[in-house]
Amino acid sequence: MNIVIAIDSMKGSLSSIEANRIVAKVLTDNGHSVKEVAIADGGEGTVSAVIQNGDGQKISVPVHALNGQGITADLAWFASEKIAVIETAAASGIQFLDGTKHTHPLNTSSYGTGELIVAALDLGAETIVLGLGGTGTIDGGIGLLNALGIKFFDKKKQLLPTKGSSLEKIAYLDKENLDPRLVGIKFWSASDVDSPLLGETGAVYMFGRQKGLLDKEIDSYEQGMRHYQKIVNDETTICAGDGAAGGIGFAIRFFLNGTVRSGFEFIAEQTHLETLIQQADLVITGEGKMDNQSLQGKVPVGIGRIAKKHNVPVIAFVGSFKGDQALFYNEGISVIVPIIDQLTTLEEALTNANKNLHRSVERSIRLLTLMQT
Amino acid sequence: MNIVIAIDSMKGSLSSIEANRIVAKVLTDNGHSVKEVAIADGGEGTVSAVIQNGDGQKISVPVHALNGQGITADLAWFASEKIAVIETAAASGIQFLDGTKHTHPLNTSSYGTGELIVAALDLGAETIVLGLGGTGTIDGGIGLLNALGIKFFDKKKQLLPTKGSSLEKIAYLDKENLDPRLVGIKFWSASDVDSPLLGETGAVYMFGRQKGLLDKEIDSYEQGMRHYQKIVNDETTICAGDGAAGGIGFAIRFFLNGTVRSGFEFIAEQTHLETLIQQADLVITGEGKMDNQSLQGKVPVGIGRIAKKHNVPVIAFVGSFKGDQALFYNEGISVIVPIIDQLTTLEEALTNANKNLHRSVERSIRLLTLMQT
Repeated sequence: MNIVIAIDSMKGSLSSIEANRIVAKVLTDNGHSVKEVAIADGGEGTVSAVIQNGDGQKISVPVHALNGQGITADLAWFASEKIAVIETAAASGIQFLDGTKHTHPLNTSSYGTGELIVAALDLGAETIVLGLGGTGTIDGGIGLLNALGIKFFDKKKQLLPTKGSSLEKIAYLDKENLDPRLVGIKFWSASDVDSPLLGETGAVYMFGRQKGLLDKEIDSYEQGMRHYQKIVNDETTICAGDGAAGGIGFAIRFFLNGTVRSGFEFIAEQTHLETLIQQADLVITGEGKMDNQSLQGKVPVGIGRIAKKHNVPVIAFVGSFKGDQALFYNEGISVIVPIIDQLTTLEEALTNANKNLHRSVERSIRLLTLMQT
Repeated sequence: MNIVIAIDSMKGSLSSIEANRIVAKVLTDNGHSVKEVAIADGGEGTVSAVIQNGDGQKISVPVHALNGQGITADLAWFASEKIAVIETAAASGIQFLDGTKHTHPLNTSSYGTGELIVAALDLGAETIVLGLGGTGTIDGGIGLLNALGIKFFDKKKQLLPTKGSSLEKIAYLDKENLDPRLVGIKFWSASDVDSPLLGETGAVYMFGRQKGLLDKEIDSYEQGMRHYQKIVNDETTICAGDGAAGGIGFAIRFFLNGTVRSGFEFIAEQTHLETLIQQADLVITGEGKMDNQSLQGKVPVGIGRIAKKHNVPVIAFVGSFKGDQALFYNEGISVIVPIIDQLTTLEEALTNANKNLHRSVERSIRLLTLMQT
């Protein structure tokens, strides 16, 4: 058989690339042809995934991490299409948080992500895809904007450092030195976060604690963010996606005319996924936790919908399933196979996800071909 | 498809009949034809199973439970073949043990099982199949023999009650009144216990504790059993199966010329299982715990071997699997499907075995037929 494999990451256990590889091994060992499509949601791993899928080149760039430390971060460069793919997690990711005041949101900056954008401009990029998942900063993107040439001043016209604590102090902006190469560049935020910048579901209230804000700091931080939006925009709008990546979503939309699309949309376009599926006998997808929320456009359902159009069966391997199977069948997913097959704890299940997936696929392929021999 | 369903009981959760029924429901709902074969190992449920499989009649007989209490027990009667199927568990089963001295092995008797044999003779039985599992007595079968007319005396020629405590006191036997109808009757012990009467793996050492013997009572009880065997036999032989059902295995072999066969053998013969399998497109079997020990002739492997001869694929649904799958593939089992599909405790898994099996079968049948649509 000719099989497309496109499994989303299983959080806490397997990346999309790893999950695909396990399935591909079993299937090729059984004599099938496979095409692996790495899935990315804009978070950590997005750059690896798009390089894996296409003829992209990995470009390593010296930049600054969210705490100012010098590091090397990668972007993906597609020379023929002049597309650069950047993930905010690379320089401004949550993995840099160390619990000290140096990585507290008040003191961190998305400047390094801006440096990656500059590197993309240096390469001659015409389209920049910015994956917004897994970010550790909540600076409203002012660090990123600063790297591109925008300056922020307080009411005494003193230049402000671009970090979280400056948000509430911004009084004036200077866009004079904004990199002129940005004109005409297409920005695309790849994100699966729908949060607005402010409010209960916004960048501060929704994601602040996991980035190190204390309960007592939340309200004043929100005030700072609200002040920032008012100063730059002078009009309080609610726009889904603005709250992604600690407000980088807002900065990309408002200052760089970016549009938000899902990571899956980019991957689907990049890999000509619909054509691949149309030509396949079978599609294998999956995700960590599948439940009725997955019907709201998560990857397996996205794939199921494409496959349904072309009448290609889909098997979804999942870490866990809770929900109404019929709703998934209706979206083109033919069979849902949980990979747990024995008494186990959550911890063991996460650790052994590779083995569990391997066994599930072996078993499923035996069932699938049992009556054909 | 034409599908044979023959699942062994899943101890602690589903009987063979229940497991078969769950699978049959899913398969018929999906438009397949099924033939259910109830499996029995000689233990509790054997009579129900054989009635379920054939045109047997359930006959209820007033008898005595192991503690002397009057109860009603069932046997299966196949009038056209003149076969009666009895299970020792019906009158002498472990379910009667109540932790009091009245059901302590020293005070219990297999007399009621003998009464069931008398009832079978009354019906005109020519073959008596005696399932030996799940017995609560350890009386070496003297109760059963007594019901058939054999008397046991002590050295003062006093008639002994036929219960465990008499074993060490037996000095003489009187077979004068042995039911003359027993001549020519074929006895068949259906058992999956290979224990000899005596010794470490015998009726007392191996099974005594679960029937209520205390550690300190074990040695003297074994002496009583050894004395009994010596008195009646005068020759210490080691014969596999003698230790089944608290020594009823020995009594059936030695006094009634019985032979031991597995419960599965009877079922296979009764249902013409090989012919059924030969005519099927698929066989579904299963058991509670499948491991490498299952290769030593447990039901699914027995079925696998038959199916392999006729090149019919076999799916085994199991509560748990630990072992080398390749060894099972080699015995004709095509796919092993554990029914657990989520994080769960053992207790929940046993309680929810019906739902788990249902989901597993649904999923498997979807996979099985996925590429055919």
